[in-house]
Amino acid sequence: MTAHQRSAALKAGVELGVFDALGEGSLSSAELAGKAGVPERGMRILCDYLAIQGLIAKSEARYAHTATSAAFLDRRSPVSMAPTLPFMMNNKIMTAFRGLTETIRQGRTSLEEPLAGEEAAEWVLFARSMQPMMAAAAEFIAEIVLSGGMPARVLDVAASHGLFGFAVVRRAPACELVVQDFPSVLDVTSENARAAGVPVTLLPGSAFTVELGTGYDVVLVPNFFHHFSVDDNITLMKRFYNAMRPGGRMMILEMVPNEDHLTPPTAASFAMMMLGNTVSGDAYTMAEYGRMLDAANFGQRELMDVPMAPQQLIVATR
Amino acid sequence: MTAHQRSAALKAGVELGVFDALGEGSLSSAELAGKAGVPERGMRILCDYLAIQGLIAKSEARYAHTATSAAFLDRRSPVSMAPTLPFMMNNKIMTAFRGLTETIRQGRTSLEEPLAGEEAAEWVLFARSMQPMMAAAAEFIAEIVLSGGMPARVLDVAASHGLFGFAVVRRAPACELVVQDFPSVLDVTSENARAAGVPVTLLPGSAFTVELGTGYDVVLVPNFFHHFSVDDNITLMKRFYNAMRPGGRMMILEMVPNEDHLTPPTAASFAMMMLGNTVSGDAYTMAEYGRMLDAANFGQRELMDVPMAPQQLIVATR
Repeated sequence: MTAHQRSAALKAGVELGVFDALGEGSLSSAELAGKAGVPERGMRILCDYLAIQGLIAKSEARYAHTATSAAFLDRRSPVSMAPTLPFMMNNKIMTAFRGLTETIRQGRTSLEEPLAGEEAAEWVLFARSMQPMMAAAAEFIAEIVLSGGMPARVLDVAASHGLFGFAVVRRAPACELVVQDFPSVLDVTSENARAAGVPVTLLPGSAFTVELGTGYDVVLVPNFFHHFSVDDNITLMKRFYNAMRPGGRMMILEMVPNEDHLTPPTAASFAMMMLGNTVSGDAYTMAEYGRMLDAANFGQRELMDVPMAPQQLIVATR
Repeated sequence: MTAHQRSAALKAGVELGVFDALGEGSLSSAELAGKAGVPERGMRILCDYLAIQGLIAKSEARYAHTATSAAFLDRRSPVSMAPTLPFMMNNKIMTAFRGLTETIRQGRTSLEEPLAGEEAAEWVLFARSMQPMMAAAAEFIAEIVLSGGMPARVLDVAASHGLFGFAVVRRAPACELVVQDFPSVLDVTSENARAAGVPVTLLPGSAFTVELGTGYDVVLVPNFFHHFSVDDNITLMKRFYNAMRPGGRMMILEMVPNEDHLTPPTAASFAMMMLGNTVSGDAYTMAEYGRMLDAANFGQRELMDVPMAPQQLIVATR
């Protein structure tokens, strides 16, 4: 009943710079309050709570990093998850879970503007926030792409921050990278592409309706199918199939729970995120992806673990 | 970042009757959805999520009680916590934690109407909901009261549901029980007193201002001081001291963390509940209670564990 306080405390700790301040050494609640410019009472209660949860350490009235907070919550860490918090805990997502009973009663998100399929401010926030959660997977997928030979033409569906395509082009500089997303999101993709020195071809619009082009060696589909129903996914897969050359490969990065829908817990519990935020999304099992890929006429497919990521990679060949 | 989903799922499970339905045996998600009159998708995702969290069990696509859900979430269980959920997850409390960063910045709850000291609809909800969390402690305290001899006059401060006083009077039928609380709350106390067959004297008003009377053998102060500042508590303790006969005892039921403010975790993390919901409340340690009791002139005091409850009992003698 009080688990929601854990989310609130983590958010407050990030927003008040607690985890960044501790990177300089152990601090008292008065010192932390001084650095944040807030009264001590709230800072003391917050830090004690974070210590009770095991997120930070406390000894002789001074707070310090744990290995976990140093690696994943201090912004100085290259694998810090702190930058993902503005998306992961954005108002829309938090609101969605306040109405969960009603969501279940009506069989779809209680949000008037669900987080799927339509252009929304949250997708710009996603593009600006989620790179830290995707970096390891992007490098892994690029290696798999290159293992099939140097690609000439790659489509990155719902490209967002662009990381997945950029990782391929860094290994295959002659490759044309086509990045599809909503216009407001492609502003971020373009910005990141310029910063990364990667040339991109912009394809603004919805993946359901935009003219995708043809002849792609590889279509990257990272974190996308979970937003939609089985029927919508088959529609999308057919579109991607037709855009690929024969022998081309679709790379699906996804939360793929086992058939028990319980394990592994991070992938399986992602279905709850989709229940809260989408009309008909889900965390589909490999059996379910197999049936969708069959319906879209794909041939060989392979499921592989992605190191350092909760997702798995499905490689499906036209 | 997603811990808030655990609270939302527990709430939805209780509100949709999942834990009551499982009392009749294992059920599929389709059967559970049928009983709740909701579409299957949301029910399936909810039940898988509850199973991932370990709150219920799943085997061969059927869900069943765990020992925990059978004891604490099924309404048929005499120790079910399900009835406390409407208070523990009421809109005001949930709203308070959405603004935690701002709460810490301003050093007090972001609620316009804090949950302390003033008459509020939530206190009526508390009185109607929280008996299951208090029953064991009420019996224990009544035994301690009786161990000091048969009391003639007992004051129950912030009496709420009334359980603490009723437990005394059931053991001491000639005792006059004075129940103090806001008028709207005393409606519930009276109702419960009639149902329990316990005669009560009503004392409507705030514990800070109402005329308390004198000569009490025992003053019960359950779950009250944590709402207020040290100074306010000293004011209250002086009032209670003056209302007691010499040798009379004040029974304080409280979340009392150790001096590290980290252990035991349930008592220590209760400070976060007070940070979210009150202007200046806290989970005070025994050293802090000792200083307040000194300032209010109390003599001997004793701290004891309360079986089956996260609180401790402080007995302070005038």
